[in-house]
Amino acid sequence: MPNSSQPQSFSYLGPAGTFTEAALHQVPGAVGKPWRAVNNIGEALDDVVNRRSDAAMIAIENSVEGGVSATQDALASITGLRIIGEYLVPVNFVLVGVPGTKLDEVSVINAHPVAYAQCRHWLEANLPAHGFLPATSNVSAAQDLLSLTTNAQAAIAPPAITAHHDLVLLAEEIGDNPNAVTRFVLVSKNAPVSEPTGADKTSIIVELPEDAPGTLLEMLEQFATRGVNLSLIQSRPIGDVLGRYRFVIDLDGHVRDERVADALLGLKRFSPKVMFLGSYARADHVSTEVSSRYGNAKFVEARDWLRDLVSGAPDQE
Amino acid sequence: MPNSSQPQSFSYLGPAGTFTEAALHQVPGAVGKPWRAVNNIGEALDDVVNRRSDAAMIAIENSVEGGVSATQDALASITGLRIIGEYLVPVNFVLVGVPGTKLDEVSVINAHPVAYAQCRHWLEANLPAHGFLPATSNVSAAQDLLSLTTNAQAAIAPPAITAHHDLVLLAEEIGDNPNAVTRFVLVSKNAPVSEPTGADKTSIIVELPEDAPGTLLEMLEQFATRGVNLSLIQSRPIGDVLGRYRFVIDLDGHVRDERVADALLGLKRFSPKVMFLGSYARADHVSTEVSSRYGNAKFVEARDWLRDLVSGAPDQE
Amino acid sequence: MPNSSQPQSFSYLGPAGTFTEAALHQVPGAVGKPWRAVNNIGEALDDVVNRRSDAAMIAIENSVEGGVSATQDALASITGLRIIGEYLVPVNFVLVGVPGTKLDEVSVINAHPVAYAQCRHWLEANLPAHGFLPATSNVSAAQDLLSLTTNAQAAIAPPAITAHHDLVLLAEEIGDNPNAVTRFVLVSKNAPVSEPTGADKTSIIVELPEDAPGTLLEMLEQFATRGVNLSLIQSRPIGDVLGRYRFVIDLDGHVRDERVADALLGLKRFSPKVMFLGSYARADHVSTEVSSRYGNAKFVEARDWLRDLVSGAPDQE
Amino acid sequence: MPNSSQPQSFSYLGPAGTFTEAALHQVPGAVGKPWRAVNNIGEALDDVVNRRSDAAMIAIENSVEGGVSATQDALASITGLRIIGEYLVPVNFVLVGVPGTKLDEVSVINAHPVAYAQCRHWLEANLPAHGFLPATSNVSAAQDLLSLTTNAQAAIAPPAITAHHDLVLLAEEIGDNPNAVTRFVLVSKNAPVSEPTGADKTSIIVELPEDAPGTLLEMLEQFATRGVNLSLIQSRPIGDVLGRYRFVIDLDGHVRDERVADALLGLKRFSPKVMFLGSYARADHVSTEVSSRYGNAKFVEARDWLRDLVSGAPDQE
Repeated sequence: MPNSSQPQSFSYLGPAGTFTEAALHQVPGAVGKPWRAVNNIGEALDDVVNRRSDAAMIAIENSVEGGVSATQDALASITGLRIIGEYLVPVNFVLVGVPGTKLDEVSVINAHPVAYAQCRHWLEANLPAHGFLPATSNVSAAQDLLSLTTNAQAAIAPPAITAHHDLVLLAEEIGDNPNAVTRFVLVSKNAPVSEPTGADKTSIIVELPEDAPGTLLEMLEQFATRGVNLSLIQSRPIGDVLGRYRFVIDLDGHVRDERVADALLGLKRFSPKVMFLGSYARADHVSTEVSSRYGNAKFVEARDWLRDLVSGAPDQE
Repeated sequence: MPNSSQPQSFSYLGPAGTFTEAALHQVPGAVGKPWRAVNNIGEALDDVVNRRSDAAMIAIENSVEGGVSATQDALASITGLRIIGEYLVPVNFVLVGVPGTKLDEVSVINAHPVAYAQCRHWLEANLPAHGFLPATSNVSAAQDLLSLTTNAQAAIAPPAITAHHDLVLLAEEIGDNPNAVTRFVLVSKNAPVSEPTGADKTSIIVELPEDAPGTLLEMLEQFATRGVNLSLIQSRPIGDVLGRYRFVIDLDGHVRDERVADALLGLKRFSPKVMFLGSYARADHVSTEVSSRYGNAKFVEARDWLRDLVSGAPDQE
Repeated sequence: MPNSSQPQSFSYLGPAGTFTEAALHQVPGAVGKPWRAVNNIGEALDDVVNRRSDAAMIAIENSVEGGVSATQDALASITGLRIIGEYLVPVNFVLVGVPGTKLDEVSVINAHPVAYAQCRHWLEANLPAHGFLPATSNVSAAQDLLSLTTNAQAAIAPPAITAHHDLVLLAEEIGDNPNAVTRFVLVSKNAPVSEPTGADKTSIIVELPEDAPGTLLEMLEQFATRGVNLSLIQSRPIGDVLGRYRFVIDLDGHVRDERVADALLGLKRFSPKVMFLGSYARADHVSTEVSSRYGNAKFVEARDWLRDLVSGAPDQE
Repeated sequence: MPNSSQPQSFSYLGPAGTFTEAALHQVPGAVGKPWRAVNNIGEALDDVVNRRSDAAMIAIENSVEGGVSATQDALASITGLRIIGEYLVPVNFVLVGVPGTKLDEVSVINAHPVAYAQCRHWLEANLPAHGFLPATSNVSAAQDLLSLTTNAQAAIAPPAITAHHDLVLLAEEIGDNPNAVTRFVLVSKNAPVSEPTGADKTSIIVELPEDAPGTLLEMLEQFATRGVNLSLIQSRPIGDVLGRYRFVIDLDGHVRDERVADALLGLKRFSPKVMFLGSYARADHVSTEVSSRYGNAKFVEARDWLRDLVSGAPDQE
């Protein structure tokens, strides 16, 4: 897809070997273009905002840990960003050490706290007496072993780590959940809305009008009355006072689908703030099943009917 | 309003002296035009369909008796009709006889069954031993006294009767409910939709998609999610089998109001059959209060937002 | 069922030969007991209220004409009545005359206005030039022919008429809708609630709390959230002012079904006035399908769970 | 409140000086009892499960960061736990160093990542060139300075830190949000349900029956139809596959309030899994306003009505 609207440069949570890098490898046309490894999600989005990169790959949800708060909050606070793609990366972990390390000699483990939490069962079973040192990222946990700046003898890391660093595998597949997967999104700035593929998702962030009973219900009815299914709904604190939330929502369908557009109109009238984050092809390519009642044809037919009726065309039934 | 779209000829349930005639007297511009007295609602609408009259005045609801089934069913079965006005007539009844009749000599009363039912308390209190002869209309009940074709000595009639016939009042205000009122509508054919006045009603007839639990609820949500209030909802049998109904609905607002148009669109997508009967000024001139959330401006704002967003305009928030 | 709670005497809209009498013939145990023919629904219910009869058979809905307003309004205004059975009677009409009458000699027809309306198509096709005289009931229309008090040569009547009177058939099955059926209910006073049969109906009358948008929706949610299906919902004017309605509702299930009882509790808390008219076996014997989610077992299980949880039993999950 | 059901020993996220400790200081009767400082939320709950402590104080939500996932997930996976109290602690941060440290000499900062994220604005404005070392807790970040095991010259810590350690303040109130607050709950095992205070909260965890459109809406209707307001609703991945969530819910009211009990019954029937986490006095002591429609009296009245009606008492209206 070498077309002018495709991003030509990319920022991602580095360094080489991260799950985010694995996600970026899935983007058609990204390989061979400039990739910029950054230290956190904020930096990645900042690169996009300031045009240092055309797009940023960021983690948005993990099947075990849930929504990535930093991503959700960053998307809610920066305007002009657009999600243009979704990618799924299986999350397996390995335990690595410098060459010569033996598993039974490991007493201290370096790991990002989230990765550490996901390997707890394996660690309790296999290294019950270990100590834990937190690291800033999965890859830096491993790199620290090489720089000798750590007391740890082993690190939890993504499988790709051994392709980039002189480290040896002490154990594989040590994650508690073998089906764990992380969902990534590719974010660009002011990208035009792509064409629907029939297997699309739309991401939005919505604030409720007031803290009244039933406003969440009312918001959901905007979707239900148009047959729009939600695949994700997550509350995030707005941050000013306890008890005020915004909702991060993924819905099945594309903003160019009539039912989705109509739901967004209803939502916009209802909510003091709706942010449209983008419509994009689903990573799993599962087509959205839409009952004929909510199909595009029904919307067109209804509009034609109403137009004729108001303009005075003869048969109003 | 001497403009070309105003009806120039009228059919109504006659003869002179009926409540329907009283309703027709309320129509600006109708007095002095040709009025055609007919025998029932079916004939009145038939006159409109076949262009014998430009419009028909028909009773649609009575505060005591409820919806006029014949009208509701006729409107549901004839296409192309449009309600263009609404009129309220207080329903008072008088008891009349030929000159010389005395109240205490009355033993048999001629009356339309509906009028008879509405005067039952008065009759039981004042003429406990009377007999009842049913008549085809309120006026014919009185006329029969003059033609001497009846055994009755008195008739229940509208107050206007004595202006048209040589009859004397035996008693006034004999109706059980002093606030009784009948709602009439003026019906035309293929009339263009009038401009909103801010105090409008819209009448529709809707069938539910299937006999499933919750479809009525789903229909009502089409109104609720757009802040549209219903002033009337009445079920009528479709007539094929027991248990299949259509709904006759009056809602506050005009089809040119955004929220009403949007609700009709939702309804049209939902229902196998929606008939639009018209948007017209309310007889009581009570303005519809619309929360700003459902005001026209909100709809325009939301549409502008969505258009910009899909077309790629820069600030999507 | 000769048990003490079964009614031993009956009032019905007479005289012999009416559809109401046909309904009464369907009641097990009624044949051979005292039957009291009365002139209208009000009298029939009055007999029950004043213990002149144990029960009254009254028409409540017609597949063509809709709900019988007089019945619905009477049930709403008299307390202590209970529906204890439901019966369906096919509504066919015949045209009868005195012996010797020929169809082509008929110029005037005597008929109850409702029956007349249901035979209009046949009459227009076969006797286009006829005149119409209204009668107070289907049977009296026929009886009038014998008493020679009428100018009519023929009458519209129920098929049973020729079993009771010396009249001859001029035409059969003259009703416009061959599937027309009238639903009757047997009404008693303060009858105990019967046992559920699995194919039951419950009838109630409900007023809405105020004329606010969405209260009808809220009422319907009381049923929807308990999986209770409505087979009839009909608005009737309360009668004081235009626009105030009560709702006559038939729902699938028995007040001893947990989901129905729970819906009635919700309704009672919501509505300023709920009248329970009775739970009774359906005339069509169609069993109510209830998803396991709304089955009695679910209600018992939930109550047990909550009781244990509040009382402090150990496993609260 | 020295009564037998009050906890007599406590576990909390230590060491001395943490916000959790500050929360525990708010518990009436806790001061002077055995307090056990542990390393994480899992350990604290484990102490309760295994009876090493009667209760554990754990953070459940932060006004800036949102729900504490570890707490929410732990509560969802351990049965028999009960929340018995709620406490609010303002979250202010200070920057500390060993005595003699000067702010302008600080080049590396030790901090728990969450605390670090909440001070980013201050740090960018005042120490733009600093490096960051992640710590396992707010207090250990400060303690590390004393043990000299770190390259950091300063640490982000709770204000209470200087009461426990020989450290000096380099800056105060460095958090980005001056109103930030963390909500803590006191968790016990199989504690009996306390009496309502009129200002209560109830916490539950609910799974949706299936991934069908509208099930979330249906769940919320269980609350809405009983007038129960939600103060928190948060989705958490169940963890097996992407897209399956459970909902952590706080609602206004007590399980002994009729409307709350009824909503829980509805929820239990609807959901494959409902966990009741407890009803407890709100930290903010704000009374729950309940419309009379949902008051206890309405529930009792409705139940009495239904009982009389089913048992055959005479006046069923």
